[in-house]
Amino acid sequence: MQPRVDLISLGVHSVDASRRFYVDGLGWPVQREVRGEVLFIQANHGLILSLWDTGQMQAEAATDPPTASPSITLSHNLGSAAEVDSVMAEAGSAGAAIVAAPKTQPWGGYTGYFADPDGYRWEIAFNPSWAVDGGGKVTL
Amino acid sequence: MQPRVDLISLGVHSVDASRRFYVDGLGWPVQREVRGEVLFIQANHGLILSLWDTGQMQAEAATDPPTASPSITLSHNLGSAAEVDSVMAEAGSAGAAIVAAPKTQPWGGYTGYFADPDGYRWEIAFNPSWAVDGGGKVTL
Repeated sequence: MQPRVDLISLGVHSVDASRRFYVDGLGWPVQREVRGEVLFIQANHGLILSLWDTGQMQAEAATDPPTASPSITLSHNLGSAAEVDSVMAEAGSAGAAIVAAPKTQPWGGYTGYFADPDGYRWEIAFNPSWAVDGGGKVTL
Repeated sequence: MQPRVDLISLGVHSVDASRRFYVDGLGWPVQREVRGEVLFIQANHGLILSLWDTGQMQAEAATDPPTASPSITLSHNLGSAAEVDSVMAEAGSAGAAIVAAPKTQPWGGYTGYFADPDGYRWEIAFNPSWAVDGGGKVTL
């Protein structure tokens, strides 16, 4: 199995509420949508973010895995601390809950966290050692 | 804010157990590691999968968001149903719990689900209408 993620599905309680946050609030483009059921957004190279009605998602994936309350963060990397502040403010204006205000982390980066309408955490990060070369390989 | 995911962090209870599954079991390459704390794996173009000690992750991201038990799936797309069967068997051999055996879905694809050592769900999918062009844009 190759180390590859092609689609991230977040189970959401209201696709319309997700639409208001991600599309109306953050201005992200809709790649495809089945109104009230699922909303697809083109993210990185070959990667789709899917905001999917939780009930439908559970039905397809059978039961939840046995471990409760997994801890997960989606990160969005930027080129400076000022850009982090700016995007955190933008997310707040779009209706996000601020989970952790931006600050310098012990590992040298500057990051803040917000939660989307379903509580999914996004880290907005400036990591001075993060670089992506032309072939897509990340250096940390 | 651009529609872009740069890093996916999964909070794990044992980074060594994650290593046994993803590195020893599935054969994924380690991009960088702090033993017992965090394991980084290069995934797609510009995307890193991070398996991070849950306690450390919670400490940096402050509290969990208020919504309990978010529902999330990471998907891995392949070119045929036979490849789905093969990768599901490989994941089972590596120690994954099979959450849903592969089957044809109402939307036309053929997918199975497994859970990693912390219960994170992976969908292994053949979607006949999934295509990625040279620029990385997905068609659904």
